[in-house]
Amino acid sequence: MSVAQEKTTAEIANSVKDMKEIVALCKRRGFVFPASDIYGGLNGFWDYGPLGVELKNNLRDLWWKWMVTCPPVGPDGQPVDIVGIDSSIIQNPKTWEASGHVGGFSDPMVDCRETKLRYRADHLIAYMPKNGEGNGYAFMENEEEDVIAKRIKNLSGGKSIGNFEATPLVDLPVTAYATIVGPDTKTPGTLTEPKQFNLMFHTFVGATGGDDNKAYLRPETAQGIFLNFKNVLDSSRVRVPFGIAQVGKAFRNEVNPRNFIFRSREFEQMEMEWFCHPSEAKMWRDFWFAERQKFWTAIGLVSENVRMRDHDKDELSHYAKEGLGTADIEYRFPFTAPGFGELEGIAHRCNFDLTQHQKHSGVKMEYTDPMDPKNKFIPDVIEPAAGLTRGVLALLCEAYTPDPNRPSGVYLNLHPALAPKKAAILPLTAKDQHPVIATKLYMDIRNEFAVDLDIKQNIGKRYARQDEIGTPYCFTIDDQTVADQTVTVRERNTMSQERIGLDHVAEYLRKNIRSV
Amino acid sequence: MSVAQEKTTAEIANSVKDMKEIVALCKRRGFVFPASDIYGGLNGFWDYGPLGVELKNNLRDLWWKWMVTCPPVGPDGQPVDIVGIDSSIIQNPKTWEASGHVGGFSDPMVDCRETKLRYRADHLIAYMPKNGEGNGYAFMENEEEDVIAKRIKNLSGGKSIGNFEATPLVDLPVTAYATIVGPDTKTPGTLTEPKQFNLMFHTFVGATGGDDNKAYLRPETAQGIFLNFKNVLDSSRVRVPFGIAQVGKAFRNEVNPRNFIFRSREFEQMEMEWFCHPSEAKMWRDFWFAERQKFWTAIGLVSENVRMRDHDKDELSHYAKEGLGTADIEYRFPFTAPGFGELEGIAHRCNFDLTQHQKHSGVKMEYTDPMDPKNKFIPDVIEPAAGLTRGVLALLCEAYTPDPNRPSGVYLNLHPALAPKKAAILPLTAKDQHPVIATKLYMDIRNEFAVDLDIKQNIGKRYARQDEIGTPYCFTIDDQTVADQTVTVRERNTMSQERIGLDHVAEYLRKNIRSV
Repeated sequence: MSVAQEKTTAEIANSVKDMKEIVALCKRRGFVFPASDIYGGLNGFWDYGPLGVELKNNLRDLWWKWMVTCPPVGPDGQPVDIVGIDSSIIQNPKTWEASGHVGGFSDPMVDCRETKLRYRADHLIAYMPKNGEGNGYAFMENEEEDVIAKRIKNLSGGKSIGNFEATPLVDLPVTAYATIVGPDTKTPGTLTEPKQFNLMFHTFVGATGGDDNKAYLRPETAQGIFLNFKNVLDSSRVRVPFGIAQVGKAFRNEVNPRNFIFRSREFEQMEMEWFCHPSEAKMWRDFWFAERQKFWTAIGLVSENVRMRDHDKDELSHYAKEGLGTADIEYRFPFTAPGFGELEGIAHRCNFDLTQHQKHSGVKMEYTDPMDPKNKFIPDVIEPAAGLTRGVLALLCEAYTPDPNRPSGVYLNLHPALAPKKAAILPLTAKDQHPVIATKLYMDIRNEFAVDLDIKQNIGKRYARQDEIGTPYCFTIDDQTVADQTVTVRERNTMSQERIGLDHVAEYLRKNIRSV
Repeated sequence: MSVAQEKTTAEIANSVKDMKEIVALCKRRGFVFPASDIYGGLNGFWDYGPLGVELKNNLRDLWWKWMVTCPPVGPDGQPVDIVGIDSSIIQNPKTWEASGHVGGFSDPMVDCRETKLRYRADHLIAYMPKNGEGNGYAFMENEEEDVIAKRIKNLSGGKSIGNFEATPLVDLPVTAYATIVGPDTKTPGTLTEPKQFNLMFHTFVGATGGDDNKAYLRPETAQGIFLNFKNVLDSSRVRVPFGIAQVGKAFRNEVNPRNFIFRSREFEQMEMEWFCHPSEAKMWRDFWFAERQKFWTAIGLVSENVRMRDHDKDELSHYAKEGLGTADIEYRFPFTAPGFGELEGIAHRCNFDLTQHQKHSGVKMEYTDPMDPKNKFIPDVIEPAAGLTRGVLALLCEAYTPDPNRPSGVYLNLHPALAPKKAAILPLTAKDQHPVIATKLYMDIRNEFAVDLDIKQNIGKRYARQDEIGTPYCFTIDDQTVADQTVTVRERNTMSQERIGLDHVAEYLRKNIRSV
C-alpha cells in the first residue's frame, strides 16, 4: 500500500480533487446539508440528506456484518466471537472521571482580552525579536509567510521578518506574553495565559441544575462498551477472547471544527473492543490491523490515497503509554493532501479502561478462564475504532470522478454495495405504456434492491443525475420494450449500453451487485 | 380491534404479565441493561445488550423498509414517495424557539424548601379540611388511600380522612400553600409556587459557555425534518404529496422517568412527516392511520392488547389546535393495564411547523405546484410518529409467554422477522464430528440469516436459552447427522421436532422466516 511514495509531489497535487466541488455535489444531490441551514447553520454540525443517509446506513450495515453477524475466522480456524451493543449517549458522569476524560480530554486555549477571540495555544506561533527589543507577534501556525512578513513590517515600524525568530507560543514563559501582539489585534499584552478547555459537551440531568447533576455527552462510544463488559459476560455465551461492537453518535466540542464532515462536533463512530489475554495482544493487534485493511479495500478504498501507518511513539495516547501503539488506516483527503487524515485506528488500550472502571466502581473486572479457574486476569484490549461519518467522506472523495466526456461532467464511482441506489428505472417518456411497465418493474424488484423510479425529465438529465449519485445501473423502458419486452441497461462507469429481457433484470442485478 | 372490550376487568387482570419478570429476562439474557450499571445506573437511561440491539435494529430496519425503500401504494395506485434523512441531534437553538419548545415544552414544578425534593405540581393532590380549619396535606396522585388516611391521622392529631376534601394542588390559590404540608415533610408552608421546568436538555456549543452558546438536545426528531424541507425539495425529485422519514435518538429531561424503557430520558423515535395539500389532509390522515395499523399487525402485535384510539379534543397538541386531531396506536403494557400506553401517534400538525420556521428564518416554505404554478401553498403535515425503543418494549411484552411445560418456564414468541437470531445451530456434544459439522453449517448460512452457533452446555439448557431469546428454529447435529446427513429442527412455540437434510437447512429457513 505504499504506491503513494512512487508518485512525485507534483503528480499528487495534480490528482487532488476539488473539495468545494465535492461539498457542492453533496448539497445539490442530497448527500449532506449544513445542519439548521435555514438558520445560517451551526458550526460543526451536518445533516445527512436522502442519499447521504442511505450511503451512511450501507457503510454502517457492512461494518456490522463484518464485525457482528459474520465476523472473520480467527487463527484457530473458527469464526471469532463478537456481539453488538447500543449504549446510552449520556452515562453516569463517574464514567468519564474513570476514563480520564473529565481530567484530561482538553486543549490549551488562550483568549484575547481585546477582541474576545479564542485560540488553541498550541496552534499559535510567536515571532520574537532576535535582539530582544520591541514586541513579538503571534500568528496561527498555518499563516502564509508573506502575510506574516507584511503584518510584522506594518506593526513594527518597518522591521523585516528576518529580525524575528519563530517560536511556538507554548514554549515561551507566560511573562513574555506582555510584549506579544495577538493574531487579531495591534496592541501587545492582550493574550491570557493558556487554560485547559474540556472537549466534552456537558448538560444537566434531573430537575435541579447544580453541579451534582452535571453529565456529559459521550466523546467516544468505547466507554459504553467497557461499562457493559461484565453484563455482556454474564448474559451472553462469550469467552475471552471476544469482542463487543458498537455504532453510534459521539460529540466533541471542537474549538475549530473544519473540513466538512471530517472534523465535526457531532459525528458517528464504529468501534469494536476486542478483549484478549495480555500475552496474545500482539497477535490480535496484527490480526485486526490486517482484517480492517481487508474491509476498507473490499468496499472500494483501493487507490494510492489509502495508507497504513504505525504511530510514532510520541503520539501514543494516555491509555496506551505501555502498549504496542496504534496503527492507523489513513486516507489522503483533498484537504490533507499531500498528507493523510485518519480513518481508523487500531489501538492497543492495554487494560487501562477496565482497570480504571474497576478502581472507580469497585466492580471486579477480572476474567476467570473457565478451563483453568486459577488463571484470572483483566483482559487487554485491541480496539479497531473507525469513523462512520469520516468513512462516508472518504468514500465520497474516492468515488468522485470528474469526466469531461459525459453531460454531468462527473460521476460517483461508488462500490455497488455502497451505492444509495443500486438501479434506476427510467421510462423514456411519461406517456404510453412506458411508465406503466416501469412502475411494474420497480414494484417487482424493490423488495430486493434499493431502486429509484424516475419518471419525469429528459433522459439525458436523468442519466446525469444517476451518474452524480453513483447509481451503477440504469434500465430504460422505451417503445421497443413495449414491442419485445427488452430494456436498455446502461452501466455507470463505462456508459456502455446493452439490451436484456425485462424478466432478467432482477437476475442481472443479483449477478452484478455483489455484497461484500 | 375492540376485542379488548369483550373481556372483563378480572380477565384482563389475570392476563397481565409480570413486568418484573420481563425486566429480569431482559437483563439475564442481554436485551436491556441499566445504563452505567457498575456505577449504580443513571435514572432514565438504558443500554441495549447483544440481543436488544439486534431486536431494535430489526424493528428500525423494517420501519425503514415500510417507509422509505418500499413505501405503500397510494390511493392513485402508485407507490407514494418518501425519502429518509438523518439530521443532527444538536441544531441551531432558533429551531426550538420556532417550534415552541423553548417557550412551551415544560412541566409545572413545585419544590419543597425543607427536603429539597421537587414534584410535578399537576401530579399533587391536596387534602384540604372541609371546615377550613387546620392544615391541608399534599400527596402524590397515585398514593394509596389507606396510606393517605394513616398519614393524615398521624399529622393532624387524629382527624379522619372524611373531614378532608381532595383537590388538585394546581386548582388552589398559591396563598393556600402556607397551610399545606408537603408529601415528604411534617410542617406546612414548605412548598414553593409552581415554576415551569423545561424538558429539553441544554448544553453549550463553542469555547465560551455563555447563554449565547446555549443549545439543546432535540426532544423530537420531527424538527430536523422540517428544517430540511426546502433542501430535500431542492435536491430530490419529490413533489407534494411526499414524505420525509427519520429514525434517531431524542432526549427529554423527564422529571419522573419510569416503567423501564417506556419513559426514559434518552430514547429513539421513528417519525415520518407527510407533506400534502391542506384539502387532502383528511384523506392522508386516514390513509396513514390504516397503514400504520397494518405495520404493527404484520410484525406481530396482534393480541387484544393493541388498541386504536382517536384523541379526545382536549388532548390536542399546541400544533394541532385547528387540525383533525391525533389518532393513537396503543398497547396495554403490564404497567398500564387495564389501561393502555401510546406506541405511535398519527398527528395532523397542520402547517404549524413550516409556518413557524418561515416566520423565524425568513426562508419561504411555500410550495409551488409544478403543474399549476399559480397554486402556491404551505403544505399540511400528517405525522405518523412512533417510539422505536417503546416499540421494542411492546414487542417484548407481547412476546413474553409463560409456559410451565418447558424447562425455561417461558419463551419469547417473537415474529421470526424480528427475532434477534433466526436459528441456532447446536452440536449435541462438543466432541467427535458434531462441532465440525455445526461450524460448517453456520458458515454456510450466516451470510443470509442471523444465526447463533452454540457449542457448549447440555442441550436442554441450550434449548431453554434459545426459547428465552425467541429463536424460532434450533438445528441439532448428532450422531445420526454424521451417519445420514440429517439434522433435527426444533420449532420454538410448539417444541415439535422433525429431521431434515443438512443441505435443506437454508431452504427451510427461507421458507419459514418470511420477511414482512
